[in-house]
Amino acid sequence: MQNFEFQNATKLIFGKDTEEAVGKEAVVYGKKLLLHYGGGSIKESGLYDRVVKSLHEQGIEIIELGGVKPNPRVSLVREGVKLCKENEINFILAVGGGSVIDSAKAIAAGVKYDGDVWDFFTGESVVTDCLPLGVVLTIPAAGSETSGGTVITNEEGWYKRATGHNSMRPQFAILNPELTYTLPSYQTACGITDMMAHILERYFTNEKNVDLTDRLCEAALKTIINHAHTVLEEPTNYNARAEIMLAGTVAHNDSLSTGRIGDWGSHDIEHEISGIYDIAHGAGLAIVFPAWMKYVYKHDINRFVQFANRVWDVEIDLNDLEKTALKGIEKTEQFFSSIGMPVTLQEANIGEEHFAEMSKKGTERGPLGNFVKLYEDDVHHILKLAK
Amino acid sequence: MQNFEFQNATKLIFGKDTEEAVGKEAVVYGKKLLLHYGGGSIKESGLYDRVVKSLHEQGIEIIELGGVKPNPRVSLVREGVKLCKENEINFILAVGGGSVIDSAKAIAAGVKYDGDVWDFFTGESVVTDCLPLGVVLTIPAAGSETSGGTVITNEEGWYKRATGHNSMRPQFAILNPELTYTLPSYQTACGITDMMAHILERYFTNEKNVDLTDRLCEAALKTIINHAHTVLEEPTNYNARAEIMLAGTVAHNDSLSTGRIGDWGSHDIEHEISGIYDIAHGAGLAIVFPAWMKYVYKHDINRFVQFANRVWDVEIDLNDLEKTALKGIEKTEQFFSSIGMPVTLQEANIGEEHFAEMSKKGTERGPLGNFVKLYEDDVHHILKLAK
Repeated sequence: MQNFEFQNATKLIFGKDTEEAVGKEAVVYGKKLLLHYGGGSIKESGLYDRVVKSLHEQGIEIIELGGVKPNPRVSLVREGVKLCKENEINFILAVGGGSVIDSAKAIAAGVKYDGDVWDFFTGESVVTDCLPLGVVLTIPAAGSETSGGTVITNEEGWYKRATGHNSMRPQFAILNPELTYTLPSYQTACGITDMMAHILERYFTNEKNVDLTDRLCEAALKTIINHAHTVLEEPTNYNARAEIMLAGTVAHNDSLSTGRIGDWGSHDIEHEISGIYDIAHGAGLAIVFPAWMKYVYKHDINRFVQFANRVWDVEIDLNDLEKTALKGIEKTEQFFSSIGMPVTLQEANIGEEHFAEMSKKGTERGPLGNFVKLYEDDVHHILKLAK
Repeated sequence: MQNFEFQNATKLIFGKDTEEAVGKEAVVYGKKLLLHYGGGSIKESGLYDRVVKSLHEQGIEIIELGGVKPNPRVSLVREGVKLCKENEINFILAVGGGSVIDSAKAIAAGVKYDGDVWDFFTGESVVTDCLPLGVVLTIPAAGSETSGGTVITNEEGWYKRATGHNSMRPQFAILNPELTYTLPSYQTACGITDMMAHILERYFTNEKNVDLTDRLCEAALKTIINHAHTVLEEPTNYNARAEIMLAGTVAHNDSLSTGRIGDWGSHDIEHEISGIYDIAHGAGLAIVFPAWMKYVYKHDINRFVQFANRVWDVEIDLNDLEKTALKGIEKTEQFFSSIGMPVTLQEANIGEEHFAEMSKKGTERGPLGNFVKLYEDDVHHILKLAK
């Protein structure tokens, strides 16, 4: 187990009707805020009205910035930074899913910086301080509601890049599983894949003697697998929605990765795909992760055997560990497929035309991943396995 | 799943040599602190000198209060409160195990209160604010290093009572598994029992649809069970010590109990025993918990079957669920016994002479527990089962 520091101070407010507390939670940070959101869905659902009412009841002045798109763009982030600076805003409230929260985090960092916010994503500068922000979550997926990270896309060259800092963790995150009832099946399944991928990235590590966090990862994966089909078949099943929503947060709050170094190669490869093709992040991960597994499993067959056995209940064949490992990978792929995800690029209508470009762009700042270091050629091979 | 709020902002600093950072962490809270500790063990081990050196390097003035005993006393807490007030101390550093940390927390609350600190433990008053405190942990057991609770004993009448508040969670907790190498086997085993009991108290709930937290609890229990014998047989095995130490924190940081109501009846009964007999808390729990299980399992056989199956790998006998449930209880008792814990009062040289008194005193503020409400008679029965 590695030495580590862990601190996640986000106040989690979970359950039915909890969004009604948003005004009370936000007013602690001042009487004016930036309300950041995506498209029309929060207006259609009535959530927008309930949030505004709760904020107004606390006498909070609202400056609005909607229009966040999936794979949130740096252009809107820049607009948000300008708006905050002009209006002397000291708190940002993100109402939406991971894209909205990531956009809000980037704005929160940008406001405290004199240069261009994209500098944080190129490595030109590092985040050291942020405006405080709060979240009302509508999509369980990205785990951004308590994480210290953000992923933003630059339309100039379609670069999708990540940055992070502990100060980016929201002050509070309000999670009402009822708000997820109206999510379409496809989006629900993308979210499920995303949160599973967050755990898998942490699970596949070279670190030995990480029994507790291995088992916590397996517990979270099994829970998600158990309830995935229920939320798809019964979208208004509170209990199943609650399990999935809480699991999405646990998957990415960093408690599962204490003392270990995760991989994150599959995420980086997926960022190359969704940077160009604007495919949903979860769908991209459902395609990349099984291909990555097939490419790297020989690096540590025993870890893949443990995964197959403990997560997928595959019996360990001691005469053929490789067979056991491969069964676990097969089960993973079949599961993604069973919840309606594409598991090949072809299913997502993505051809080979940008393989070379993606492999080059993805590795231009160095190899990807930690479990196995992936160079340009490796990424190219994984993309071919994902065809 | 219940609605819940969860926030645990303690900064966890885990690993080899991490106590060297104590000065740097503490100086954030000022240049003077109360150094609170127990007996001579931290002086013998050299830890005291290393901590003092690190504090002095940051120019921190140290006011000392040692002498915390197991089942920490309110008399010393009162002394600490007086010392802090007289010296205008704004930060407390606890170096030791749960007793030292609990004592420090009570002092931290008492300093912010005009009345007698014992009021917090009788229900006369409630904690709303505390001095900030930090921890260097030497005994993995109580989980007090990131919890918001404290248990103190009043020598006048030997009352052992608990109180808590989120502000009592330490600002930082430094956990170096190497510091636990010198713990005697008995104390190590008491700690293992205590942390398992913290998880079991959370596990046995009437709340339905708590799959994620059930599985997280099971993961932590299995980890502790896996490594318990190793730390007893190889006290300087870093990897096993690290698993146990981290598990002790996870067991009681409240992440395992989100959305569910724990029981805590066994803890309350044990407090009656160790309030009178000054037996180690962990040993008391090893005696009470199996007896409690035998008394209540019929209330929800399926939960006990799940426990037997998932934690102890007992095969589910669908023709005789009760048998499966009882096997899980038997395995629990055998395990405690195997690590050197007493599992009957007799083994701890405790007779029946105070059964009536303990049952009466324990329930004088109302019934104990939540899974099954325990009245005076029930507690008496459980004590008899523990004979």
